[in-house]
Amino acid sequence: MFDLVIRNGHVVGPGIDTVMDVAVDGEVIAAIGHGLRGRRELDATGLLVVPGAVDGHVHIRTERAEWSYDDTFRTGSVAAAFGGVTTFLDQVQVEPGVRLCAALAGRQGEAQGECLVDYGFHVNPREPSRERIDEIPEVVQAGVPTIKFFMSYEGWALSDDLILRGMQHVAAAGGLAIVHAENKAVIEELVRQQLELGRSGPQWHAAARPASMEAEASHRALALARLAGARVLLYHVTAAESVEELRRARRHGDAAFGEACLHYLVLDESAILDPVTGPAFEVSPPLRDAGHRDALWRALADGTLDVVSTDHGPRRRVRDAAGELVPPPGTSGIEVRLALVHDLGVRTGLLSLQRWVEVCCTRPADVFGLPTKGRLLPGLDADIVLFDPDREVMLSAPALHSHVDHSTYEGMRVRGFPVTTISRGEIVVEDGTLAAEPGRGRLAPRGWRPPGRIG
Amino acid sequence: MFDLVIRNGHVVGPGIDTVMDVAVDGEVIAAIGHGLRGRRELDATGLLVVPGAVDGHVHIRTERAEWSYDDTFRTGSVAAAFGGVTTFLDQVQVEPGVRLCAALAGRQGEAQGECLVDYGFHVNPREPSRERIDEIPEVVQAGVPTIKFFMSYEGWALSDDLILRGMQHVAAAGGLAIVHAENKAVIEELVRQQLELGRSGPQWHAAARPASMEAEASHRALALARLAGARVLLYHVTAAESVEELRRARRHGDAAFGEACLHYLVLDESAILDPVTGPAFEVSPPLRDAGHRDALWRALADGTLDVVSTDHGPRRRVRDAAGELVPPPGTSGIEVRLALVHDLGVRTGLLSLQRWVEVCCTRPADVFGLPTKGRLLPGLDADIVLFDPDREVMLSAPALHSHVDHSTYEGMRVRGFPVTTISRGEIVVEDGTLAAEPGRGRLAPRGWRPPGRIG
Amino acid sequence: MFDLVIRNGHVVGPGIDTVMDVAVDGEVIAAIGHGLRGRRELDATGLLVVPGAVDGHVHIRTERAEWSYDDTFRTGSVAAAFGGVTTFLDQVQVEPGVRLCAALAGRQGEAQGECLVDYGFHVNPREPSRERIDEIPEVVQAGVPTIKFFMSYEGWALSDDLILRGMQHVAAAGGLAIVHAENKAVIEELVRQQLELGRSGPQWHAAARPASMEAEASHRALALARLAGARVLLYHVTAAESVEELRRARRHGDAAFGEACLHYLVLDESAILDPVTGPAFEVSPPLRDAGHRDALWRALADGTLDVVSTDHGPRRRVRDAAGELVPPPGTSGIEVRLALVHDLGVRTGLLSLQRWVEVCCTRPADVFGLPTKGRLLPGLDADIVLFDPDREVMLSAPALHSHVDHSTYEGMRVRGFPVTTISRGEIVVEDGTLAAEPGRGRLAPRGWRPPGRIG
Amino acid sequence: MFDLVIRNGHVVGPGIDTVMDVAVDGEVIAAIGHGLRGRRELDATGLLVVPGAVDGHVHIRTERAEWSYDDTFRTGSVAAAFGGVTTFLDQVQVEPGVRLCAALAGRQGEAQGECLVDYGFHVNPREPSRERIDEIPEVVQAGVPTIKFFMSYEGWALSDDLILRGMQHVAAAGGLAIVHAENKAVIEELVRQQLELGRSGPQWHAAARPASMEAEASHRALALARLAGARVLLYHVTAAESVEELRRARRHGDAAFGEACLHYLVLDESAILDPVTGPAFEVSPPLRDAGHRDALWRALADGTLDVVSTDHGPRRRVRDAAGELVPPPGTSGIEVRLALVHDLGVRTGLLSLQRWVEVCCTRPADVFGLPTKGRLLPGLDADIVLFDPDREVMLSAPALHSHVDHSTYEGMRVRGFPVTTISRGEIVVEDGTLAAEPGRGRLAPRGWRPPGRIG
Repeated sequence: MFDLVIRNGHVVGPGIDTVMDVAVDGEVIAAIGHGLRGRRELDATGLLVVPGAVDGHVHIRTERAEWSYDDTFRTGSVAAAFGGVTTFLDQVQVEPGVRLCAALAGRQGEAQGECLVDYGFHVNPREPSRERIDEIPEVVQAGVPTIKFFMSYEGWALSDDLILRGMQHVAAAGGLAIVHAENKAVIEELVRQQLELGRSGPQWHAAARPASMEAEASHRALALARLAGARVLLYHVTAAESVEELRRARRHGDAAFGEACLHYLVLDESAILDPVTGPAFEVSPPLRDAGHRDALWRALADGTLDVVSTDHGPRRRVRDAAGELVPPPGTSGIEVRLALVHDLGVRTGLLSLQRWVEVCCTRPADVFGLPTKGRLLPGLDADIVLFDPDREVMLSAPALHSHVDHSTYEGMRVRGFPVTTISRGEIVVEDGTLAAEPGRGRLAPRGWRPPGRIG
Repeated sequence: MFDLVIRNGHVVGPGIDTVMDVAVDGEVIAAIGHGLRGRRELDATGLLVVPGAVDGHVHIRTERAEWSYDDTFRTGSVAAAFGGVTTFLDQVQVEPGVRLCAALAGRQGEAQGECLVDYGFHVNPREPSRERIDEIPEVVQAGVPTIKFFMSYEGWALSDDLILRGMQHVAAAGGLAIVHAENKAVIEELVRQQLELGRSGPQWHAAARPASMEAEASHRALALARLAGARVLLYHVTAAESVEELRRARRHGDAAFGEACLHYLVLDESAILDPVTGPAFEVSPPLRDAGHRDALWRALADGTLDVVSTDHGPRRRVRDAAGELVPPPGTSGIEVRLALVHDLGVRTGLLSLQRWVEVCCTRPADVFGLPTKGRLLPGLDADIVLFDPDREVMLSAPALHSHVDHSTYEGMRVRGFPVTTISRGEIVVEDGTLAAEPGRGRLAPRGWRPPGRIG
Repeated sequence: MFDLVIRNGHVVGPGIDTVMDVAVDGEVIAAIGHGLRGRRELDATGLLVVPGAVDGHVHIRTERAEWSYDDTFRTGSVAAAFGGVTTFLDQVQVEPGVRLCAALAGRQGEAQGECLVDYGFHVNPREPSRERIDEIPEVVQAGVPTIKFFMSYEGWALSDDLILRGMQHVAAAGGLAIVHAENKAVIEELVRQQLELGRSGPQWHAAARPASMEAEASHRALALARLAGARVLLYHVTAAESVEELRRARRHGDAAFGEACLHYLVLDESAILDPVTGPAFEVSPPLRDAGHRDALWRALADGTLDVVSTDHGPRRRVRDAAGELVPPPGTSGIEVRLALVHDLGVRTGLLSLQRWVEVCCTRPADVFGLPTKGRLLPGLDADIVLFDPDREVMLSAPALHSHVDHSTYEGMRVRGFPVTTISRGEIVVEDGTLAAEPGRGRLAPRGWRPPGRIG
Repeated sequence: MFDLVIRNGHVVGPGIDTVMDVAVDGEVIAAIGHGLRGRRELDATGLLVVPGAVDGHVHIRTERAEWSYDDTFRTGSVAAAFGGVTTFLDQVQVEPGVRLCAALAGRQGEAQGECLVDYGFHVNPREPSRERIDEIPEVVQAGVPTIKFFMSYEGWALSDDLILRGMQHVAAAGGLAIVHAENKAVIEELVRQQLELGRSGPQWHAAARPASMEAEASHRALALARLAGARVLLYHVTAAESVEELRRARRHGDAAFGEACLHYLVLDESAILDPVTGPAFEVSPPLRDAGHRDALWRALADGTLDVVSTDHGPRRRVRDAAGELVPPPGTSGIEVRLALVHDLGVRTGLLSLQRWVEVCCTRPADVFGLPTKGRLLPGLDADIVLFDPDREVMLSAPALHSHVDHSTYEGMRVRGFPVTTISRGEIVVEDGTLAAEPGRGRLAPRGWRPPGRIG
C-alpha cells in the first residue's frame, strides 16, 4: 500500500508509452506498474501522465535600479505549477563588484520560502575580471554547476579569454557552460549603421542581429568549449546556421547541447510589427522568419536541439512618451510551454509524445544537471503531471498566473493542458485549482550523478 | 504480493541505471520500484539486472542436401538462455520452388516445442522470380515483417529489380528490409583474378571482398530502400566506409539502421591465418583490419550502428582431404555476446552500461519489431537477466552449450557473465544451471506497435 | 612572315582574354602576340577568336539491321565545321562476336576520306565476355585510349565484374573509362510496373528513370573506377544527385570527370510532351525538371562538370502506325553547341567567356585525350574559330547542315554564332560558307602527353 | 624582329608546358611561339621559362622607434630579383594618428627610386577607430585595393565591428580584404596561464597559439567577409582546421582565398627548439607539426590554398642579455621561395610544374590584383625568369642578398634555382649576376580588370 497511486494513466516518458499506474511513497516515486494500490488514488483514465516539466531558462524579479522582470518567486512558481513545471532554473546575474557566491547566497535567500515548486540557479558572472571568473569553482562547490556567459549586451558580455577561462573552470569542476551566443561588436556596428540611415523602428531589429552572426558566435563558443574541454549548452538557438554548427560539433564528438526557446518556435519575425504587442518582442536573438522556425522544429525532432525552455521574463506594461501602455521586451512562457509544444509539436505530428516529454522534461533534467527530476523512475522525485490532451484553453493574461498584465500568446487557443501537478508527492494543483501554499518549494539537488550519462 | 520479485539489483536500461526491484506477475513485468514483495524473491544484490537480450541474426540447423549449421532449435536456444538471450531470430532461407509461407510454416513447425526461450524468423526469398517476391505481403500478414535480401552469394543474391520490388512490398506492409550488402559480381571477378594468379589461401580471402565494395552495395541498398520508401537494416556492417554511407542516409532522414556482428568487433583479419581455427573465419564480409574494427565500436557508441547481433551459425569440424579436422566457415556467438560486449565495450569505457543494454537488448527489439521484448517495462514480457559483472569465465567449447566441438573465442577470458535468465516470468537458467525444459519457448509477437517509435 | 595571321581578334582561352593576333604556319599555330604578319591575313576585329571546339560524344551513322543515326561522317563533319567544331569523337559500338580492334579498324575505314574536320573514336564493347574485355589493351595500343561502358540498355549493359575488369585494363593502359550510368534492372522493373498500371505514354518516361537511380549507378561507376585505379568520365550527367556523387569522388582525390550534354542544359522534362517533336526526346537519362537543369549549370560554372558534349545522333522522321511522320529518339547538337552555350551561358552571366571556351574546347581536349587540340598555343594544331558574338541565327533544320529533316531546337533564336572555322591551318568555313571539301579531315592523335595534366 | 627573344626554353604557365620562344618588345611580351627572332636573343635551351614570380607578403624596413625589419627597398628588391621575384607587395602598417593615404604616400615615397623590380602595397589600418576605417575608400581610390586587417597582436588587432566595417568598404570598392586570423584574447590568456605555471621557453610558443583558435578566427573572418560581401584572403594559413574552414566557405560559394607561407611548408615545430636559430621562429601563427605541414601541401595541390608567399621580414641578430647574438623573430624567404617550392614540391611530385607556376606567379597576380603580372601572355609585362632545374645551391646568408647576417634555411641544399630575371623587358639578373641598377622598379598597376576572373 503506497501513499499515493495515479491509476490507469497513459504514462509517457523516454521508452515508455503505455497505460499503467505510478506509485508514490513520501516524496519519491516508489514504483511504476500494474495493480499498484495506494492510500490515496487518483484516477488518470484518459489523461497523459508525464514527469514534471523542467524549465531551465527563467528570469525572476531582481531588485535593482535598472529594470527587472515582474514575476516574483511566488507568482512565477505558481504559474509554473499551473503549467506543469515542477522545477525551474533562475539566473543569478551577478553585478560587478559582488562575489559570485555572495550573489548566489543572496538570491537563494530571496527564493527560500517563496516558491510553490522546486527551483535552482545558474550563476552568470557579469564582471569582466579574472578574479571573478576564478570564483567559479566555489560556485560549483556551492551546488550550482551551470555557469552562464553572455557574448553580447553591453555590461554583460565577457571577452573570449574570460569565457575560455570560465569554461576551463567549468570543465575542471564537471559543470556545464551555458552561452548566449551573438557577436556583440557586429550587432552594435549594424545598429549604428542603421541609425546613421535613420532606421530605428522595430522593423530593423532583426536585420541588425543576422543569423550569420549568431552562427559565428555559436561556432566560437563551441570552439572555446572544445579547447577548454567543457560541456556546453547554447541558449536560445534561433538560426538554421547555428543548428548546423551544433551538428558539426556533435559529429566531432563534442558534448555540445542546444536549447530552443518557446517564442522562437511559436512566433516569427512578423510579431514585432504589431503596434500594440510588438515592443515585447524586441528580444535578442530576434524572432526570425518561418524558414528558421521550421529548422528549429526539425532540429528538435531529430535530436540536434535537446531542450525547449522559455527565457520566461515577462514585464508589466509601462507608459511610453505618448502615454500609451506598452510592454517592455520580454516574454511569458513558463505556464504554457508544455501545452504549446504539445499543441504545435505533437498534434501536428512533428514530435512524438515521447519526444515531447524528452524536450520539456527529461532532457532538461539531464542537460542542466537535475538528477532527481525529469523521469518517472522509482527513486526519483515524485514530480508528476496529469495532462488532459483534450482540454481546450484560450491563452490570455487573466486566465494565466504570471504577475503581468498582458500575454505573449494572447488569443491563441490550445488543445491539451495540464490539469494536476504533483511536486515531490504533494498535489500542488488539482483539477486546475491551487492545492498547496507557496513556500514549500525547495532547492533541487544538482549534478550529473553517473558521469557521462548525458550525450 | 507479486509472483516473483528480483530485489535490490542494479537495474540498467535506456534511461535507467539504479538499484531497485523488478516485480513479475505471470509472464509479464508487473512493476519496477522499491519495496516490492513477491511470493518468490531473488536477491540480486551486486548483480546487474537487464532486459533479456535479443539476437536478431541467428542460423539454426536446416535439413538440406547442402551443408547446414549444427545448432538445433533445442541446443541453440539452450545456449541462448545461458548467454542471457531470451529471444532469437532465425532465417527462413526459402529454396527456389517453395512458397515463402510454406517454408515459413515448415520452419515454424520445426521450432515448435523445441526451444527453451522465445524465437522468431526473418524470411529470406532466394528464388529470383517476381512471383516469389510478390508473396512478401502474405509473409508479413503471416506475422513476419522482416524480409531479408542477399546481394551476394551465387544462388542467394537477387538482382536490384527484385530487391526494389521486395522493398516496395515491405514498405507497403510496414515491415523492415534486411540486406546482406556486398557486390557479388565484383567479388567473383576478384576471386577469379586471384585464382589466375595462383592465389588461393585464406590470406587472399579479404582482398577479394574489399571494404569499398561492401560500401558500394550498402549505398545501393540504401538507395533502393529510399526509392521504395522502406525501412532498411544493413546486416553485419564491417567497413568504415559502410558506416559512412549509413550516416549519410540518416542525415538525409532515412529510416536506415545498421548491425554490427560480434566477431567483427572482437577479432580482426589475422584470425583467418590461424592454421587450426582459421577456416572457420572464411566468412563474408571478411574480418578486416583493426582500423575498421575500431570504426565499428565508435559507430556503436555514437548511435550510427544500432544493434549487435552474432550471425551465430557454428558448424562442427569435418575432415579435410588430409584427414585433419577443420572447422567450416561459421562462428558461434549467441552465448557470449552479452558478456563479450560488456567485457570489451563497457569495461574498456567505449560504451556506457546503458548503451550496452541498448545495443544488445532494447534496440534489437525496436529495430526487428519485437514489441513485447527488450525493456524492463511493466506490461512487457518478463524476460530478465541477472548478470554478474565480476564473474570470470574462460571461453571454450566444453564450457558452452552450442552443439559444436570448437569455440570461436577459444581461450579468451571474460569478466562478467549472465548467471540467471528469466523468460516470460520463468527462471530458465538459475545460477548457471539449466532450470527449465526446452519446448516452453514461443513464437514472439512481431510488429512496431506505436508506428514511428523506431528512429 | 607567317602563312596565315588572324589579326586583332578578341582571343579567349584559359587564362587568355585579350585582343591580339594568332599566327599559323602550315598546320600548326606558330605564335600568338601583337604585330604578327602573314602572307594571308584575316581581320578579326570585333570577333571572338577561340580554339576549335571539341565534341566528345557524337553518334555517326552505322550500317546495321537495327536503326542507326542519320548523319554520315560527311554530313556530320560538315555540320561540325559550321558549328565551330574541329574535332569530334564517334562511338565504335562493337557488336557481339566482333573483335574490338576489327570493329575499330572497320569504323576507321568508314571515316577515312569522308570528314571535313578531324575526328576520333571511343570503343564501346557490347559483348558481355571476358575475352572481349581483355582486348582493351590492344585497342589502347591501336590509338584509342577512351573505352565506353554502358550500365543500362538491354544488349549493351555490362555487369559490374566486366566493367571493373575493363576499367582495370584502362587503368593499366593509361586510358579513360567512360560510363553511361543508370541502373538497368531498376529502370526495367519500373517500366514493367508502369505497364501493369497501363502507364505507357511519354509522360511516364522520366518517372521510370529516377534521378536517384542515375546517382546510384554513378556512385557505383565511381567506386569501380576507384577500385580499378582508373580515370573515369560520367557521360551525360543529368541529376543534381549525380553531381553530388562526382563532388564526393573529387574530394576523395579521384580522377573523376563529368559531362553535361547540350539538351539537358537547354530543355526540360516538358519537351517530351510536345505531340510533334516529343518522341525525339525519349532519351535516357531523361530530360528532368528545371531544378536539375539549374544544378547542371551551377556544376559547369564551379568546375564539377568538366565538359559540354552533345550526344549528337539525330534521326530522320519515320511514319508511325497512323502514318504520321514522327522523329525517333535522338537529338542534334553538333552545329549549335558553341552558340547555345554562349547564348544561354555567357550572355546570361552563368559562365565567363573563358569558362565557355574551357567547357566546349579546352577541357574536352584534356579529358578525352586530344593533346594537339583545344588551345591556341604555339605548336598545337591550328584549329581556330572566329565567332561573331552579335550574329543572330534562328535555329531550324534548313538553316543547319545535319542530314535530318527536323531540328532539336527548332525556332530558338540565338545571338552569337561561328562564322569562320579553320582546321589545321586550312579555312574550311569562311564567313558562313563552305570553303573546303570533305575528305581532308584526319584521325586526331590521342593521349595525355604530360601525365597528370588532367585534374 | 622583336627587341628580345628568349629562344627554345621550356615555357611553363597555366595550360602551357612546351618548348618555344618568348618575344619582348619594349616592356611587354610581344608574342610567344616558334621561330621568333629578336635583335637580342637569349638561348634558354634546357631551362624553364616562367613568369616573374609575385610575392604578395613582404615586410620592408620601416623607420620607427620600435623594432623593424632589416631589408630596405633596395636590398629586398635585389634579393627578390635574384630569387626570380619581379613584383613584391609590402605592408603599409599605419600608425595610430596617421591618415591612411598619408602613410601610403609616405611609404610610396620611401620606395620610389630604390627598387630593382616592381612593387606595390597593402594598406593595414592599425588605429581602432571608425574614422580611420572610413578612409579605406580613399586608399582604394589611390590605387591600393588590398586592405589588411589583424585579428591578433596588441596594438594591431581591430575588433570585429571595425573589421566588418572595413570589409564593407572593401566590398563596395571592389577590393580584397586580407586577414591575419588568430584569436588575440585567447592567445593572451593562454600565455598568461603558461607564465603562471612558469612556462616561458620557446617550447611553449605553439601551445599558446593552438590550431583550433586559428581556425576559429578564420571562421570568423570568413563570416564577416560573407556578411560584408567582400572578397577575402586568409594570410599564412597554417592549420589543417583552417584549411577546412576555407573549403567550407568555398563550397558555400564565397570568394575566399588562402595563402601558405614558405616557412610553414618547409619547417615544423621543432625548428623553434634550436638554441642558435630558434628565436627567429617565434612567429605567429607558430610553426606546427608535420601533420599540419602535410595538410598545407595537399591544400596547395588541390587548389584550396591559392598562393605561396613568404611573410619575408628578416632581422639582423642582436645581442641578448647574455651577450649572445640571437636572431629576433622573422624569416627570410623572398630569394628562395621559387627554388624551395620547386625542390620540395615539384621534384617530390606533390605539385606539377604548372601548379608551381600558378602558386608562385599566376595566382598571386590574380588574387592580389596585379593585372599586368603573372603570365607569359602577349600584352602583359615582360617579367620573365629563366630557371635552371639542375642548378644546385647551398642556402646560406653570404650566398643570398638580403641585408641580414643569418639565413632561415641555413645549410639546406636545393636543386633548381633562377639564373636570369627579366623585369619589364630589362635583364636585371643575368646568369646569377646583377645586371641593372636598383631604382628602375616601378609601382605596379593594381586591380582586377575583368571582374570575376578570380575564383
